[in-house]
Amino acid sequence: MEFRISSKTIKEGKTVILYDDGAFSGVKKIAGKVASDIGAVFGSAPKALTADDLSDDEISKIRYPILVGTVGCNILTKLETAGLLSLHDVDGKREVYYHQGIGKLQGGVLFEQETAAFVIAGSDKRGTVYGLFALSEKLGVSPFIDWLDVKPEKKSSFTIPEKYAFTSKEPSVRFRGFFINDEWPAFGNWCNKRFGGFNAKCYEHVFELLLRLKGNYMWPAMWSAIFPNDGPGLANCELADELGVVMGMSHHEPCLRQGEEYRYLRGPKSIYGDAWNFLANEKGITKFWEDGLIRSGKFENVITVGMRGEADTAIMGKEATLKDNIELLRKVLKTQNRLIKKHVNKDLDEVPRMLALYKEVEPYFYGDEKTPGLQGDPELEGVTLMLCDDNFGNLRTVPTEQMRGHKGGYGMYYHFDYHGYPVSFEWFNTTHLAKTWEQMTTAYDCGIRDLWIVNVGDIFSNEYPLAFFLDLAYDFDKWGTSNKNAAHEYTKLFVEKYFGTTLTPAQKKQVKDLLLGYTRITSARRTEAMNDEVYSAYAFDEAEETLETIEKLMSATARLYEKLSGNVAYRFYELVYLPLMANLNVQKMWLMTTLNHAYAKIGSTYAMTLAERINACLEFDQELVDELHKIHGGMWYGMGLSEHIGFKNWCEEGCQYPVVHTFMPGNKDRLIVTIPGTEQFSEGYSWTRKALVLPSFLDSHATEGKIELSTGCDKKISYTIETDAKCLTITPASGSVEARARKRIKVTLDRKKMPKKNTEAKIIVRFGADAFIEVKVPLKKSADVMRSLEKIAPEFIAIDAENYTENIPGKVGRFEVIPDYSRGLSAMKAYPQDVTFKKAGDAPTLTYQVSVPKDGKYTLRLMTNPSNPNTRLMELFVGVGSNGGRLKKVNMIPDGFAIGDEQELWKKGVLDNLRITEVDLDLKEGKNTIEISAISPNFVLTKLVLFEKGKAPMDSYYRSNSAAMR
Amino acid sequence: MEFRISSKTIKEGKTVILYDDGAFSGVKKIAGKVASDIGAVFGSAPKALTADDLSDDEISKIRYPILVGTVGCNILTKLETAGLLSLHDVDGKREVYYHQGIGKLQGGVLFEQETAAFVIAGSDKRGTVYGLFALSEKLGVSPFIDWLDVKPEKKSSFTIPEKYAFTSKEPSVRFRGFFINDEWPAFGNWCNKRFGGFNAKCYEHVFELLLRLKGNYMWPAMWSAIFPNDGPGLANCELADELGVVMGMSHHEPCLRQGEEYRYLRGPKSIYGDAWNFLANEKGITKFWEDGLIRSGKFENVITVGMRGEADTAIMGKEATLKDNIELLRKVLKTQNRLIKKHVNKDLDEVPRMLALYKEVEPYFYGDEKTPGLQGDPELEGVTLMLCDDNFGNLRTVPTEQMRGHKGGYGMYYHFDYHGYPVSFEWFNTTHLAKTWEQMTTAYDCGIRDLWIVNVGDIFSNEYPLAFFLDLAYDFDKWGTSNKNAAHEYTKLFVEKYFGTTLTPAQKKQVKDLLLGYTRITSARRTEAMNDEVYSAYAFDEAEETLETIEKLMSATARLYEKLSGNVAYRFYELVYLPLMANLNVQKMWLMTTLNHAYAKIGSTYAMTLAERINACLEFDQELVDELHKIHGGMWYGMGLSEHIGFKNWCEEGCQYPVVHTFMPGNKDRLIVTIPGTEQFSEGYSWTRKALVLPSFLDSHATEGKIELSTGCDKKISYTIETDAKCLTITPASGSVEARARKRIKVTLDRKKMPKKNTEAKIIVRFGADAFIEVKVPLKKSADVMRSLEKIAPEFIAIDAENYTENIPGKVGRFEVIPDYSRGLSAMKAYPQDVTFKKAGDAPTLTYQVSVPKDGKYTLRLMTNPSNPNTRLMELFVGVGSNGGRLKKVNMIPDGFAIGDEQELWKKGVLDNLRITEVDLDLKEGKNTIEISAISPNFVLTKLVLFEKGKAPMDSYYRSNSAAMR
Repeated sequence: MEFRISSKTIKEGKTVILYDDGAFSGVKKIAGKVASDIGAVFGSAPKALTADDLSDDEISKIRYPILVGTVGCNILTKLETAGLLSLHDVDGKREVYYHQGIGKLQGGVLFEQETAAFVIAGSDKRGTVYGLFALSEKLGVSPFIDWLDVKPEKKSSFTIPEKYAFTSKEPSVRFRGFFINDEWPAFGNWCNKRFGGFNAKCYEHVFELLLRLKGNYMWPAMWSAIFPNDGPGLANCELADELGVVMGMSHHEPCLRQGEEYRYLRGPKSIYGDAWNFLANEKGITKFWEDGLIRSGKFENVITVGMRGEADTAIMGKEATLKDNIELLRKVLKTQNRLIKKHVNKDLDEVPRMLALYKEVEPYFYGDEKTPGLQGDPELEGVTLMLCDDNFGNLRTVPTEQMRGHKGGYGMYYHFDYHGYPVSFEWFNTTHLAKTWEQMTTAYDCGIRDLWIVNVGDIFSNEYPLAFFLDLAYDFDKWGTSNKNAAHEYTKLFVEKYFGTTLTPAQKKQVKDLLLGYTRITSARRTEAMNDEVYSAYAFDEAEETLETIEKLMSATARLYEKLSGNVAYRFYELVYLPLMANLNVQKMWLMTTLNHAYAKIGSTYAMTLAERINACLEFDQELVDELHKIHGGMWYGMGLSEHIGFKNWCEEGCQYPVVHTFMPGNKDRLIVTIPGTEQFSEGYSWTRKALVLPSFLDSHATEGKIELSTGCDKKISYTIETDAKCLTITPASGSVEARARKRIKVTLDRKKMPKKNTEAKIIVRFGADAFIEVKVPLKKSADVMRSLEKIAPEFIAIDAENYTENIPGKVGRFEVIPDYSRGLSAMKAYPQDVTFKKAGDAPTLTYQVSVPKDGKYTLRLMTNPSNPNTRLMELFVGVGSNGGRLKKVNMIPDGFAIGDEQELWKKGVLDNLRITEVDLDLKEGKNTIEISAISPNFVLTKLVLFEKGKAPMDSYYRSNSAAMR
Repeated sequence: MEFRISSKTIKEGKTVILYDDGAFSGVKKIAGKVASDIGAVFGSAPKALTADDLSDDEISKIRYPILVGTVGCNILTKLETAGLLSLHDVDGKREVYYHQGIGKLQGGVLFEQETAAFVIAGSDKRGTVYGLFALSEKLGVSPFIDWLDVKPEKKSSFTIPEKYAFTSKEPSVRFRGFFINDEWPAFGNWCNKRFGGFNAKCYEHVFELLLRLKGNYMWPAMWSAIFPNDGPGLANCELADELGVVMGMSHHEPCLRQGEEYRYLRGPKSIYGDAWNFLANEKGITKFWEDGLIRSGKFENVITVGMRGEADTAIMGKEATLKDNIELLRKVLKTQNRLIKKHVNKDLDEVPRMLALYKEVEPYFYGDEKTPGLQGDPELEGVTLMLCDDNFGNLRTVPTEQMRGHKGGYGMYYHFDYHGYPVSFEWFNTTHLAKTWEQMTTAYDCGIRDLWIVNVGDIFSNEYPLAFFLDLAYDFDKWGTSNKNAAHEYTKLFVEKYFGTTLTPAQKKQVKDLLLGYTRITSARRTEAMNDEVYSAYAFDEAEETLETIEKLMSATARLYEKLSGNVAYRFYELVYLPLMANLNVQKMWLMTTLNHAYAKIGSTYAMTLAERINACLEFDQELVDELHKIHGGMWYGMGLSEHIGFKNWCEEGCQYPVVHTFMPGNKDRLIVTIPGTEQFSEGYSWTRKALVLPSFLDSHATEGKIELSTGCDKKISYTIETDAKCLTITPASGSVEARARKRIKVTLDRKKMPKKNTEAKIIVRFGADAFIEVKVPLKKSADVMRSLEKIAPEFIAIDAENYTENIPGKVGRFEVIPDYSRGLSAMKAYPQDVTFKKAGDAPTLTYQVSVPKDGKYTLRLMTNPSNPNTRLMELFVGVGSNGGRLKKVNMIPDGFAIGDEQELWKKGVLDNLRITEVDLDLKEGKNTIEISAISPNFVLTKLVLFEKGKAPMDSYYRSNSAAMR
């Protein structure tokens, strides 16, 4: 008999969830949630309870029991004894569950009547919980059913084959979770309005989200909240422990005590003293920690050890030496370990503990040549050492091979949201998965497998990358290093699960493209870091092109949203519409501001239209937040309140909406002709008689060029355009341009009709009585032409990294393609990703063929991810050579580079999400080969640009990273 | 018996103007004008005629004849014969008149009855004309009675003492006149509307103006006009000749033919050929010239000789050598002289001829080492060589002592109006007299005394400097080199004459101050060259200070204008109101734009108020021009049409009204505190907690400092300000700032109450719940304090040039003060002004005492007029030394300097009206003496600024030239 769930079996009491008498209370709660999930799918919910809770009559009705237990419990033992179940693959495992169908369960083994059971057996409490939620997932229930109110599709029935059996894997990373951080104004307001505080009512939702996403670990909100106190009382801690959530606290909150707590409790008469200073107030601080451990030590925790200053600062003053600091920290650790032994567990090995090697703690750990650090200190044995990214998603140091044996293992603190220098990003999701994948697989491959925690800000809107992060941590075999296309595949699967059959396959494909599309834009520049000086208004027409991409994404989103209704519409709103529209609207606004300034500068009245559009964007921005506050009964009130426009400092202080440029148009008839992609413009009057150049056709593949018309006055201007060349077609060749509008004129080249001798055509734009603008159109490249265009359109070669000629393996490993990487078309990275080569020649190498017009010095720009060095040495070497000559060993980390506040070199890298390294090469006329070898790990190459030394292409943001080749 | 004019004597026929039977017809016309002047003064006009025109009865009624004649005429001869008059001082003189009262004239000498006569005797036609107009002036008639409709005050009677006698001087400069140039759109539209063209009806007013201003020479409008053709026909030429106006044509229009003429007359079938090319079309061009001389040679002219290309360009192509050009020009001159001899006068010496050494002609004249130039060529003997300024009022080369003997003498072409690079100034007057005085006295002292012509654009609104220019040329003894205060004295006298008793003495004083005040602003920067990047929004608060000066001038003008009515109001409008309001309104608009950008940049909503004010300025600008078009019956329609705002090129192509910066204010409560004079600002939130510094009191004389409050939101914000220092008073210490407003808070220091120990006070500005801004107020200078302020308020010493310690005469001459010079408080220049010293030590020297805090290298900035070298060598040497050491000979003309199109170094000088020369000096701690000696002429020093090398004061435009000293 097949196990079966249907509305009927539930109503008739045939399907019930039965958990073991001795089940963890958390398991019971989760079973209840799964029962409710089933209710959502089938229209009515089965009971979830123990057999003791049922009457004999009720028991006799059961035909399809869902039997839930943890290894060693009564139910499971009975089944095992009866030979119906083997827990061999589960027993002794970590967080593993086992699903099995039992086709014939009768004759006193639990039931008298014949039943078909579905067994959910956990290796431990969380194994059981995951097993329960896994059933929900099987039923098509989204992990976001509670958090985002993603309603499952109705089913009439569900069956499990008689012999069905499935054992989950042990999760790849031991502690996997997220950190609610920088929770004001969004999460804080949301909490207060919806739950009355940072209490257990709120955290029940948060924990459920975490567990459904197969996480097990969390750091609670902490800027104005006290997790162990806000429950009210211990309710938050108790709930976490009950549900199987391992609590940590942030990297500077030791011994289960939150920073805010000390702020409230300290004082001249406090038993904890009045100084967060272990030197001056050892007794008070020790007491403070001790009481924290007494209070919360009984729950499942990863206890932060060590000590930093208050609110994320250094512990000792500037005058203290490295040695002073190390000594102090050693003393702190000794005290903490003593307290933990006393109040938590005599066997310290049984107590997960974590020390964050964050900011100034890193040098204390490593020490320097004179002063040994804490590395290898017995007090740190068994303590997980938590490393971190640079807050912008680039790992800092990773454990060297020698370090990997550390007993406590390593953790990684990663960021999807950040409040700090150089700019905070706390609004809606801006994370592009491929980079997260690239970085976190590096972490894993370098032995960081004990603890992964990601800062998700207010959670809301980071659900998509969060799910990826936790799934990657849970099942590295599936999503990890071996799967280079994980980001795309995951997104596809994510959309599939999220929408099921509520969207058509074509729509789901579109949703996937929208998610990847908008995060590609925010990956080029985070929304909060956007301003009017990022993209060029001129070079490569990149501002217009990016605007076009954005407009397409936004209008596709709006069109799809329009078509949807009910819960599908709402969940599309949450996952796609809101973050996409919100982010892209702001990006668009800044791009328009860039253009507004450029048009205003040349006196084009189109500037005023842009000014209106900028204001429309600001209004839309406000509408989006207002709508979020009202949608779905106001369940998200507060989210979206974070500042996100016009940061002048890292924080919102002084932040400012776009400065819009307008001017009063003059009276005279004025037509302004510009050449997109260049800074050229002319008004065609006789005083300056400035000729323009349309360089488009020097690209031998190009058949289309553009000239643009707009007015310098508040009148419609009629124009006609002539050309002396039969090979050129101009569309439209006459007409008018409205005031405050602009018109792009297409110039099409028929290469077949190209004159043999004449290498330059002419276009004349006429308006008014006698005004005209001459546009020269060079048709063939020549040294003369190129020299004359040096300023307008300097020549260069750009190659996307994946378009290599040869991919030559190194002594170990070879380059592989990471698709859709960050700002690049894709990236090339050498695998395995933790190898450092001594000799450039031993390293995996890519070659590229280029052809240059003459012998000479050329500059090669390597565009890479702004990766940090993998060790504390400021080194990230690449080998660069040409034509088989010796490879130069080039350090991509510039002199003076450091990660942190006021570090301009680092700042530029993380804001641009790009590092540019320039290397000079001597090339010969004609074909040349360029060789690039990955000497150090973390070399993630997206693009190469080559130009004659001193003649760089126009400054641009985006296109310098595109596939353009001239 | 006294000579007398009164309404009664006129009505009774007792007062009449009697001119000689044989008087020049021009003299008759002018006599008629003077009769009309008398009519305007006394209510009725006397007759002006010859005795023959009167009946015996009428003659018998005459008691007070005004007898007008030119030496040798009948009337005068009779009087001389009768012993009543001696023309000894007049006879044989140039343009001299003699006024004499004859108390008793009877008994058959002209009249039978007893009369008291007033004799106006001219040495020649113009002498007589000047003598006639001199009577008008005596009667209080303004030279602008016709041109500007300045109505004279009524008089009841006027008498001349019996023995009165006055002989005028010979004018200092032989030909004195102006050039109507770049006459479109203003003069051209005016002419067409009012007179139907550039005809004699128009020129009658122009000539009258010229003659009343004691000029005698003019170049007519020439961009679309043909003076000898527009009369209609020859009427213009005939009228000029009749009235005694010597006509010239512009520097590139030889042989009395205008450039426009050739444009009209040329053609394939034209007798003049179809090429303005003496090589290819010698016959046609020669014929063209010949016909011009035949047509107009009979009139009084200064004939332009030489040849340039069409429309102010070079004559031969770029490929021609210097020698080619010289040869060609020599040939041209030969031809022209031949034609002149044939058609004008066999004796060339009798024909005033002029060759302009303009642009490329200059090198043809001087030649180079290999190729001798035209200098000394017999064809040039007797030809006046016309030199010129750099179009911006700075002389170019002047004749060297050797050259001064040239028989034809020298001329100067000067500019009050210009159409060309780097920027055209053609709107309303922007000339400040002191610089004109300084430059034109130099010209005179260097032997340029034969011809002075000034480009006055459309004439209108340049009347004030034009009158000065012509009076200076007419009476150099009075207004020239010996009178260093001429500009002020002249302005005072000008106002006195212009307003007479229609204004009170206090009002006249005010008018004088207004004229000097507004031209001082336009002298710092011409209105057309203003933009938003001229003045600093920060440094020394110069934008605000300049705005204040402007506001004061504008409101004083408006108040005075308000009080006036009738003709006085109208003439105040013309002389003061219009040019002052128009110029300063535009200057103000740009200053506000500067500030608008600065406030917008820091997110201050005051930016929006400024944006509104900028638009108000633009509206006012339009209103002013509209009003001008309507005022006084529309007599000035067309004037004021020249573009004058936002030049991007030298011409109006692409010119643009201010780009205004606005932004949408945020919602959050935001108070922005700024420190005027610095770039500092803060919003007082805790994220950046940026402290500001108020450096004012480090100036040991200062007792007042300012801090400024404005809002970053669209709400009124309340504030309170506290200080920890008893010596500081803050006003107002609490209150509120309206949105879009700003409030300057006064901080007053009582130096008596200053703390002895504490060298720094604190001010705290609070608003909202917990936001506050700390302002540090250093009270005493110290090395530490100054180091900390290096960026905010770098230390420097500024000395106005006139505040020297010693003025040491040179071997020849010494420095003298030129008051109110250009951008400076005044200037120091060495006189005589044509001496070049070989040894720095021989030159006149100024010394300055300075005190510096420590030994070291210092930079001395000399701020001077952007004078050009006085010879063709690119040299303008100044000697600079310290503490009696050797004087360094420093060339103030930078390498690469040249005058002309696209010459950036020259451009900066003329636009800034300032040259800055930096010299490094080694100084010792404490007192030092700095010595400055004038090795070359044309060294016009306005200010010195001294600072530690590498630590320049903040970039500023105006204040760097003011009297600030810290």
